[in-house]
Amino acid sequence: MSAITNVPERITKTIAGTAEEQQFLQELIAAGLLLPSGEPGVYGRGMVFEDVRNRFDELVTRTGLPDQPERPRFPPILPRRTLEKAGYLKSFPHLCGAVFSFAGNEREAMSLVECASNGADWSGFLSMTDVVLVPAACYPAYPAMALRGPLPKGGVTLDLGGSYVFRNEPSGDPARLQMFHQREMVRIGAEEDVLAWRDVWMKRATGIFQQVCLDATLDVASDPFFGRGGKLLAKNQLAQGLKFEVLVPIASPGPTAVSSFNYHQEHFGTAFGITQHDGSVAQSACLGFGLERITLALFRKHGLNPSSWPTEVRTVLWSA
Amino acid sequence: MSAITNVPERITKTIAGTAEEQQFLQELIAAGLLLPSGEPGVYGRGMVFEDVRNRFDELVTRTGLPDQPERPRFPPILPRRTLEKAGYLKSFPHLCGAVFSFAGNEREAMSLVECASNGADWSGFLSMTDVVLVPAACYPAYPAMALRGPLPKGGVTLDLGGSYVFRNEPSGDPARLQMFHQREMVRIGAEEDVLAWRDVWMKRATGIFQQVCLDATLDVASDPFFGRGGKLLAKNQLAQGLKFEVLVPIASPGPTAVSSFNYHQEHFGTAFGITQHDGSVAQSACLGFGLERITLALFRKHGLNPSSWPTEVRTVLWSA
Repeated sequence: MSAITNVPERITKTIAGTAEEQQFLQELIAAGLLLPSGEPGVYGRGMVFEDVRNRFDELVTRTGLPDQPERPRFPPILPRRTLEKAGYLKSFPHLCGAVFSFAGNEREAMSLVECASNGADWSGFLSMTDVVLVPAACYPAYPAMALRGPLPKGGVTLDLGGSYVFRNEPSGDPARLQMFHQREMVRIGAEEDVLAWRDVWMKRATGIFQQVCLDATLDVASDPFFGRGGKLLAKNQLAQGLKFEVLVPIASPGPTAVSSFNYHQEHFGTAFGITQHDGSVAQSACLGFGLERITLALFRKHGLNPSSWPTEVRTVLWSA
Repeated sequence: MSAITNVPERITKTIAGTAEEQQFLQELIAAGLLLPSGEPGVYGRGMVFEDVRNRFDELVTRTGLPDQPERPRFPPILPRRTLEKAGYLKSFPHLCGAVFSFAGNEREAMSLVECASNGADWSGFLSMTDVVLVPAACYPAYPAMALRGPLPKGGVTLDLGGSYVFRNEPSGDPARLQMFHQREMVRIGAEEDVLAWRDVWMKRATGIFQQVCLDATLDVASDPFFGRGGKLLAKNQLAQGLKFEVLVPIASPGPTAVSSFNYHQEHFGTAFGITQHDGSVAQSACLGFGLERITLALFRKHGLNPSSWPTEVRTVLWSA
């Protein structure tokens, strides 16, 4: 199956990218900041890009130190069963990535290779494995926390670092990657603690974006739920203020979301059986910084060469 | 499709793990070094594990500084076309991971969710995308280098950092992960440069493992090629000395490969059209350190608490 002939309209519409997005992508490639792979939304990254990304990542780490978070790390795959239990497929079936592999015999392997060599479809030789790609960095953390038994009094705060997440949305916009680093923190515990923590981080994030001189706005937001039923979910999410986003201009017609602050109520606590010290269901919130998008926003705003960025930005990122 | 009922014998044989592997895994989990996900070969990692892994990673970086490598970074997915061109499917169809997603309508999405909720097979609702999981950290580098045109005189040396790679081999052995960090370096250029560089790194690696007091042996090796045809490929690879491995004891009956040094001759140069400054096809070699395996080997040898490790090991890892 080829991406060009057999993809839904949703994808073909976005895959090309606007003229401005395309031009920015070409500038990034010419400067060696992104290395094209031949596939939209999949790029290598040059040393200068990575330096900026890592410096911003460290700025987030420093900002979160007062929380004294635990710092577990998770790989970019998780059990398929976790995705099923989390309810992801109901909301975002179009974005999921399931891992398929080959479990056949030698004759079938030869046919597979022959198909692949001729540019024919070899998907029929594969079957679904028990793992899927991580769609949001916090998903593996909930079952891991549930396994430990009831939370300590005061709950837990996790700093998950910059984890790779997958979204099936190939796009010509360099700010829309199929896999990217989500710099994520999670708070699990009582309602008031979870909400207070999210409020603190919305203020901290606003401060971070001011420090690096990006034109950021914080606004209530909704997730890209699938289908007509998803429109209602999005409406409820907006009305209840469950999701906020920081938006900055990159190369798209409107500003791009680079950070989000999400209140899950009891969703993950119920799905994975996470309880508080008193036995009641735990609530949770998470926040994420899209590191590649923020790096791109910095290049867009301050120029492609960080050595000529404003002194205040350089000081914040490189002097700590 | 469930992992238990419908997997080839190759997997069911290895999935349980030996008694000693299982016991080591339980110790690692009890110490908070690994966080179980419910799926063999997929674990979160605690802070102490990550500290050791990152320190060893930095030791490799320091060792490679004289090469003055370029440091591009690549995500854990690459275009399916790259895997097809690289000949991976011919040698390792059983290890590949292809990403499938949902491209259907709302009615189909509802059926998918119903299947998933009932524990039924929902693979039929998915179709193959244009991306696959990276099987070895160097794969994305070859087309990226080819795109730049002929190599400079002297070729190029790349330090790809610790990249996540995927292998479809669920196992009860904690040293056999489905996704792990491959700390990889690549040399592309003339035959003599590529071979000399691989020799230097085999000496450097031997030194690194001595410094951290692991009982390492270097030996000629072969890849786990698929099927009966693969046996011949492995025999040729051994006879030509194309692959060397460093092996250390972990928890398996025999020692475990933790590092490999691979001479590709013109394989990738031809597959991706990489040419030297004089227009001839470039040769390549790569080397990789399996960071999670090395971290596990250190815990196995020196104990689960790094603060009580031998002073010389602590000095090498934490004092630089």
